[in-house]
Amino acid sequence: MTLETELLQMGRSARLAAAELRSASAEQRSAGIRAMARALWADRGGILAANAEDMKAATVHHDRLRLDEERLEAIAVALEQIAGLPDSVGVEMERWQRPNGLDIARVRTPIGVIGMIYESRPNVTADAAAICLRSGNSVILRSGSEALRSSLAIHGALERGLAEAGLPEAAVQIVRTPDREAVGQLLRGLDGAIDLIIPRGGRALVERVQQDARVPVLGHLEGVCHTYVHSAADPQMAAEIVRNAKLRRVSVCGSTETLLIDRDAAARLLPEIAAALDGCELRGDELARSVVPMEPATEADWHTEYLAPVLAVRTVDGVDEAVQHIATYGTGHTEAIITEDPAAAAHFLDQVDSAIVMWNASTQFADGGEFGFGAEIGIATGKLHARGPVGPEQLTTFKYVVRGEGQVRP
Amino acid sequence: MTLETELLQMGRSARLAAAELRSASAEQRSAGIRAMARALWADRGGILAANAEDMKAATVHHDRLRLDEERLEAIAVALEQIAGLPDSVGVEMERWQRPNGLDIARVRTPIGVIGMIYESRPNVTADAAAICLRSGNSVILRSGSEALRSSLAIHGALERGLAEAGLPEAAVQIVRTPDREAVGQLLRGLDGAIDLIIPRGGRALVERVQQDARVPVLGHLEGVCHTYVHSAADPQMAAEIVRNAKLRRVSVCGSTETLLIDRDAAARLLPEIAAALDGCELRGDELARSVVPMEPATEADWHTEYLAPVLAVRTVDGVDEAVQHIATYGTGHTEAIITEDPAAAAHFLDQVDSAIVMWNASTQFADGGEFGFGAEIGIATGKLHARGPVGPEQLTTFKYVVRGEGQVRP
Repeated sequence: MTLETELLQMGRSARLAAAELRSASAEQRSAGIRAMARALWADRGGILAANAEDMKAATVHHDRLRLDEERLEAIAVALEQIAGLPDSVGVEMERWQRPNGLDIARVRTPIGVIGMIYESRPNVTADAAAICLRSGNSVILRSGSEALRSSLAIHGALERGLAEAGLPEAAVQIVRTPDREAVGQLLRGLDGAIDLIIPRGGRALVERVQQDARVPVLGHLEGVCHTYVHSAADPQMAAEIVRNAKLRRVSVCGSTETLLIDRDAAARLLPEIAAALDGCELRGDELARSVVPMEPATEADWHTEYLAPVLAVRTVDGVDEAVQHIATYGTGHTEAIITEDPAAAAHFLDQVDSAIVMWNASTQFADGGEFGFGAEIGIATGKLHARGPVGPEQLTTFKYVVRGEGQVRP
Repeated sequence: MTLETELLQMGRSARLAAAELRSASAEQRSAGIRAMARALWADRGGILAANAEDMKAATVHHDRLRLDEERLEAIAVALEQIAGLPDSVGVEMERWQRPNGLDIARVRTPIGVIGMIYESRPNVTADAAAICLRSGNSVILRSGSEALRSSLAIHGALERGLAEAGLPEAAVQIVRTPDREAVGQLLRGLDGAIDLIIPRGGRALVERVQQDARVPVLGHLEGVCHTYVHSAADPQMAAEIVRNAKLRRVSVCGSTETLLIDRDAAARLLPEIAAALDGCELRGDELARSVVPMEPATEADWHTEYLAPVLAVRTVDGVDEAVQHIATYGTGHTEAIITEDPAAAAHFLDQVDSAIVMWNASTQFADGGEFGFGAEIGIATGKLHARGPVGPEQLTTFKYVVRGEGQVRP
């Protein structure tokens, strides 16, 4: 069987499984996720052995590739949590009557078949499967080749869990070959079988997806996030928030990459902030460097998602210039203002056109769990369908159900 | 200036205008739409003269291309109605508190810049401009070349209305050349300026858009809509609804193209339905033809959006076979069941995965106005972002506004 034939077959199976999942009850979907969690834990020996092979073969040693019993337990616990989340399939979002008596309801439905393309985090295999199942979607997983042995072993466990719960095994399928052409096939939609592609990975993957996708994409672009320290900021709060926003975890998409600070407050506020950023390299514009010694920033710095202990520092002349900088260099992810002035905050929150805008809080709160969504499959930086953290509810769509008594249209 | 340079310049102007529209008040946007309506009516002489030239040059005479004073007045009245619709920009959709005190609100925002590509209906020029303005979006219009003189004349009036209301003229721009390469440029997004493409036109346009678009598309595919007459249907209601669903207007996307009817009820119900479909050509399967004389249907008929007084008729063995037929041949637009049996209706409404599913009502109700949306720019048959009638609210997105008191993430 050629790769294309095999993938088209997976697409057809996924569509049939999606129809079954749509008809299943919320309890059945929950039971399926719990069974997947149990099977994952029961298979831990095989999964860890597969992961050891992945680690041995890896050319670069990313910590994110590594599994151990503790991490596997955390994945199983995450699945149990997803099993406990509310199931929104079938929920009426709105319902109204028209003057002619027609009764119209907007009802949540699953999207259908989701193609999930990710890199070397084996945990995504389980998380994505559970979030898709929670929202009634079937999923075709495409793991990065570095993590393929681990992902296949995890997938084997998930399949056994589905079977045990009486759900179709094709609800969660995985591409078994590392051949990169499989990605191209998924991006072309498998002859209409795939409703939505979710890529999770670095810039090269995102660019390929944008170029080749012929089906809708829920994109997770870079997070060039900004924290703007306004002249009316509380100095201690500013220092604590900036430290957390940058350094709590530098590798997450919600970490702050550029600090904006009011020009007329830089001399007063920047030294304390810089002191709080112990171990972080600063790169600043001229005025910032005249206050705190640091490397000069270049144009490229304003565009860069460092994902490292590096922070660009730019001085601005008030809220409007901060908004303007964000509009020019931001990626529409998450931006925060630190100020005690409610009018300045309101203006910033209104004017910044990003998925998440914050007032007096750390940009590292950009996370589905922190938002109360229970789980997330990524943070969408596009503007369509879902924006910000993507949890189970964001993987649903809706249909209109119209109930009449014989009405015809005049 | 080359076409590409000109279009990129339009894209940049549209982005700036979008930022201004986002900041404008709902009242300013309403005033802008009212001023556009007034200017349209004031310019009626010039617009009708331009339309007369379009009509003279047209190779095929579509009624939809023709304007007269009555139709122009109807367009102006439609704009007045849109001016009176609620403005949802800035509306809080949800708001909740997290245990750590963070206050999270989900707030409606405009999408940004919309690219509207349409064919020879000059009224779309005004309707699309008003719906986009209502929802705070700027728009770049691309009229079909057959209607270009009319569309340019209408656009001139809209621009004057915007200026009179103190809104940026670049909020509503139109591509002035009939060069088809302009469509390609729009579909590639004008260097990131366009957030969403909305195509309205025939199959060739939709296919080109699907092939070439590099930005999200809110697609309006064909409406191969079904009305399913269940064995427990009221015979008179079935005949009236099927007649209306097919014949009220055959050229709209919500008109029924295939009648499904229970095999065991065909002899009882089909003659009355056929009698009600006076002037409509029927094409049926073998059993249907044994009850009522008609032409034989071929496989192609089940796929066809006739947009003409032609109806395909297929007999099925109960709800599940009807659902299966719709899943195979439908386009996900609108499907209805006619029955007095609530259980059969519930099963159909649940199982059919279309944007609109109806019980005992005519599929011709598939319309934003009939749904109470006040206006529509089309009916989306995709599953993402918006589905079904697309009114002003469906042209918005949202952002999360997070208010804290210095919270940092543990």
